[in-house]
Amino acid sequence: MNRFLVLRDAYGSVQAILPDSKRHQFEEMIKSLNYESVLRIRGVVRNRGKARNPKIKTGDIELEIDDLEVINEAPPVLPLLSDQNALEQTKLKYRYLEFRSEDMQQKFRLRAQVTSRLRHFFEKLGFVEIETPTLSQWTPGGAAEFLVPAAKPNLGRFYTLPQSPQLYKQLLMCGGIDRYFQIARCYRDEATKSDRQPEFTQVDFELSFTSKEKVMHLVEELIKTAWPESLNEYEIFSSPFQRMKYEQAMNDYGTDKPDLRIPWKFENCPEKMASVLKTGVEEKENFSARMFIAKGTGRHCTEEQMSVWKKLIEINPHAQPFDIFIPPNQTGFNNWDSDFDTNELVTKYDIGPDDAVVFCWGETDGVQRTLGFLRNYLADTIDLRKKSGFKFVWIVDFPFFEKKQGNFECLHHPFTAPIKEDEIRLWKMEGLENIIAQHYDLVLNGIELGGGTIRIHDPKLQRHVFEKVLKLPTKHLEPFFEALSYGAPPHGGFALGLDRFIALLSQQGNVHTSIRDVIAFPKTKDGKCFLMNTPNEAPPGTLERYGLQIVKGDEKQNLV
Amino acid sequence: MNRFLVLRDAYGSVQAILPDSKRHQFEEMIKSLNYESVLRIRGVVRNRGKARNPKIKTGDIELEIDDLEVINEAPPVLPLLSDQNALEQTKLKYRYLEFRSEDMQQKFRLRAQVTSRLRHFFEKLGFVEIETPTLSQWTPGGAAEFLVPAAKPNLGRFYTLPQSPQLYKQLLMCGGIDRYFQIARCYRDEATKSDRQPEFTQVDFELSFTSKEKVMHLVEELIKTAWPESLNEYEIFSSPFQRMKYEQAMNDYGTDKPDLRIPWKFENCPEKMASVLKTGVEEKENFSARMFIAKGTGRHCTEEQMSVWKKLIEINPHAQPFDIFIPPNQTGFNNWDSDFDTNELVTKYDIGPDDAVVFCWGETDGVQRTLGFLRNYLADTIDLRKKSGFKFVWIVDFPFFEKKQGNFECLHHPFTAPIKEDEIRLWKMEGLENIIAQHYDLVLNGIELGGGTIRIHDPKLQRHVFEKVLKLPTKHLEPFFEALSYGAPPHGGFALGLDRFIALLSQQGNVHTSIRDVIAFPKTKDGKCFLMNTPNEAPPGTLERYGLQIVKGDEKQNLV
Repeated sequence: MNRFLVLRDAYGSVQAILPDSKRHQFEEMIKSLNYESVLRIRGVVRNRGKARNPKIKTGDIELEIDDLEVINEAPPVLPLLSDQNALEQTKLKYRYLEFRSEDMQQKFRLRAQVTSRLRHFFEKLGFVEIETPTLSQWTPGGAAEFLVPAAKPNLGRFYTLPQSPQLYKQLLMCGGIDRYFQIARCYRDEATKSDRQPEFTQVDFELSFTSKEKVMHLVEELIKTAWPESLNEYEIFSSPFQRMKYEQAMNDYGTDKPDLRIPWKFENCPEKMASVLKTGVEEKENFSARMFIAKGTGRHCTEEQMSVWKKLIEINPHAQPFDIFIPPNQTGFNNWDSDFDTNELVTKYDIGPDDAVVFCWGETDGVQRTLGFLRNYLADTIDLRKKSGFKFVWIVDFPFFEKKQGNFECLHHPFTAPIKEDEIRLWKMEGLENIIAQHYDLVLNGIELGGGTIRIHDPKLQRHVFEKVLKLPTKHLEPFFEALSYGAPPHGGFALGLDRFIALLSQQGNVHTSIRDVIAFPKTKDGKCFLMNTPNEAPPGTLERYGLQIVKGDEKQNLV
Repeated sequence: MNRFLVLRDAYGSVQAILPDSKRHQFEEMIKSLNYESVLRIRGVVRNRGKARNPKIKTGDIELEIDDLEVINEAPPVLPLLSDQNALEQTKLKYRYLEFRSEDMQQKFRLRAQVTSRLRHFFEKLGFVEIETPTLSQWTPGGAAEFLVPAAKPNLGRFYTLPQSPQLYKQLLMCGGIDRYFQIARCYRDEATKSDRQPEFTQVDFELSFTSKEKVMHLVEELIKTAWPESLNEYEIFSSPFQRMKYEQAMNDYGTDKPDLRIPWKFENCPEKMASVLKTGVEEKENFSARMFIAKGTGRHCTEEQMSVWKKLIEINPHAQPFDIFIPPNQTGFNNWDSDFDTNELVTKYDIGPDDAVVFCWGETDGVQRTLGFLRNYLADTIDLRKKSGFKFVWIVDFPFFEKKQGNFECLHHPFTAPIKEDEIRLWKMEGLENIIAQHYDLVLNGIELGGGTIRIHDPKLQRHVFEKVLKLPTKHLEPFFEALSYGAPPHGGFALGLDRFIALLSQQGNVHTSIRDVIAFPKTKDGKCFLMNTPNEAPPGTLERYGLQIVKGDEKQNLV
């Protein structure tokens, strides 16, 4: 072993061998060498002839060492070997060691490749890349924005880090940059939501004189152009992508982000079953009893599993009661003891011995959402959501507003235009719940990959939406309303979540993958970076500089 | 006039004409139409025949209006017309209107084009684009960094916005990403420095197993590749770019950022002149009397101008006394009454009637710097620094450290490696002032366009620089030192100031151009955005969210 070593760089590895003539000179050095040390070797590349190793790419050759120098020696033990499985925390703390693995090298090279192709696509079509500010102005509504305190002469004032370049790109449209794009860093202070990062990257574009269909077509072409060769086996391009109305998505799948790799759709329970379920329900109006058949999942529907799902679903305030039926004498948990003949169910729906009938009853909207969650959970038991493959679907015709505690809120964002036919009703404030927005979401494997809208370009209508419908303060939006008034062209755009897209690509469509895996130096769910110990106490003197005082710290924390 | 209108988009304009057959339908509409309104016109493109206007690009054709729709009407008066000269503040407030000008359209399309070529260059050479965090950890020393307060569970802690991706890119080198690049957003809270922006863009790259010469060569190739066709008349590519040692630059030009379009070099005053100047100077050690001849500037050296320069120069603590001599009987301000024969000067240096001899005496370093400033000021009187043209020069062999108030500071940054020959002296702390750093600055027309270094890859040496030489706290750098210890390859890189580069390109090399002109939505010198009224008061509830209180605001301000 003292005569061989393996040299590795970012692209591969090769065997080096110490010839007899050099043994006295380097043998001791090689013996004491630690893994992952940085070496400089001069030598001759030789054909290994019969000793070739066909299993490795460089197995035909070896490097005969003539001179060897240790440039930077690694310690005998490393906290993480690149191909090692370790705790998440360890991996994040030693992210640079994880980077040495083939898997990470591939992921980040894939990310760079796809990003480059996205840009080329826009450049070819004459889109102008423009960088918009990240030291920005907060906008009412929306996610929590990070603050950045300003120093003199702006003491006591703050910038905010933007959730998206929305206002700036609309201002560019007002400025005659008729085709804009940017791979933009965006920020959201929502550390608690699962698999979100406080900073993330968005492929952002906007164009003037366009339409919903034109933007959707552009996005389809964008994705085709960016698609990596390594995934060419997946035939996603039966273009255009499927379109589905919001209403249909909610009705068939209980979500506006359906994973269409799961073949199960909802339907009404048979009449007798529904009437049994209705008994004992207080609120008979707006009652539904709906179900879907989860093929091949029967054996996974154990009592234990059921109670886990129940707990998960009960978190949601709209949750409704549900149950699962599997044919008698199967390995599953039940059977369901009821007043109606389950044989009818088995026969009518051709339920096999390993199938499960998932059903839910109560207030319609809650029933749909509950079944929507269960559809994903059941699919997970047979790894349908992990499996390779890509199913894109456009969700369109979203309602503009939803009513929450008596007030109207936007389902997406307030810069969206209603469809032409609904504009008068928006002005008249009639049937606001039913107004359809010119919004389009792109969903991949049940994950929202991005969304866009045609924007309002009429300053009066835009003000009407904020002031009359949403009743939001508009002080900070006055400059924006003014901009629309100086001859803003009609415009619309889209934003694609780059991290999410790359995460799905890098795992062949498996949705149980984290965007952390494709972000070079991610934060944990708690917004921490274990590598650099971020966030940390303020540098000396800076709080004074910004005229600030900490009034409430978190004492449970140990400052590192 | 009621029959004609001009249609404009981002790419040009064309005349539209109302035919007689449509007069009754649209004449009133056209009459009442305001400039900059958004129109949709359907019609037929016609050859104007003899009525063609050869002065404009689309002068051969006109659009005969068949149908006309006003999509978004502009008001009768706009606060700014795109081709209008206006106050800086008005322009920034209505930046989107300024964007409609041909000049702005060209600048931002140029920026996008150059940025794209920069990226292609790196991609072709196998550099991997990696996005590094902007919610980062502060590093000791360097410019003031913006704070970003963190919410629960990190209350009382802060992220900082990075001045550059320095540490992250070095960590990537430790992680085997052997060629990295990024067009990176960077931040500096230095609102008061002239023509700086709180956020700016840096073309950042780093590679392993490289050398100073290799990096410099890469940068030269990078600039050649990105060079826009519109500037091909400037023959900058007598490759490689000129190299100049720091010492020579300081000696000949009094600055490490010499504008080599100015032909004047410094030299010692003639002996007799120097000895006269030395009289009355207290500190005779380290005394110099130096001068340069500013050809063709004599008429501009008025008494008034002199007193302006004196005031500007006196701000600098190292300033030394200076004076200007111009030959007798010229229009200039003086003559200098002295004990030595100025004829000797005139004859020896062939001083013409419109030339000025600028001289300065006192402590050597101060003399050089004073003359360095004056060289630029004098050049400005005859517009040498405004003139078209590009002179690149590499400044190399910088001292690693400089002594300030008894302490050593880095001339650039502490991650820089010393040259091989000086490493031992660095360990021994001998003659630290004379240690040469592997640093290289690229200067264009007297503007620092970027800089880079070969880094220290030995964790012990890196710690030594921070702890022993600079005496800086290293607590936050421990993870970085650790990373270097696990087999970091030798590496180095460069960062190019993109905003500055584009500003110079867009003005054919004129240095009196602001980076604000090529930033879409810039801040003022005071860090304000007049368009969006940034920075502003914190959104309701956010200070509580971050556990902060304002203890000192700036009361002179009116919150908008």
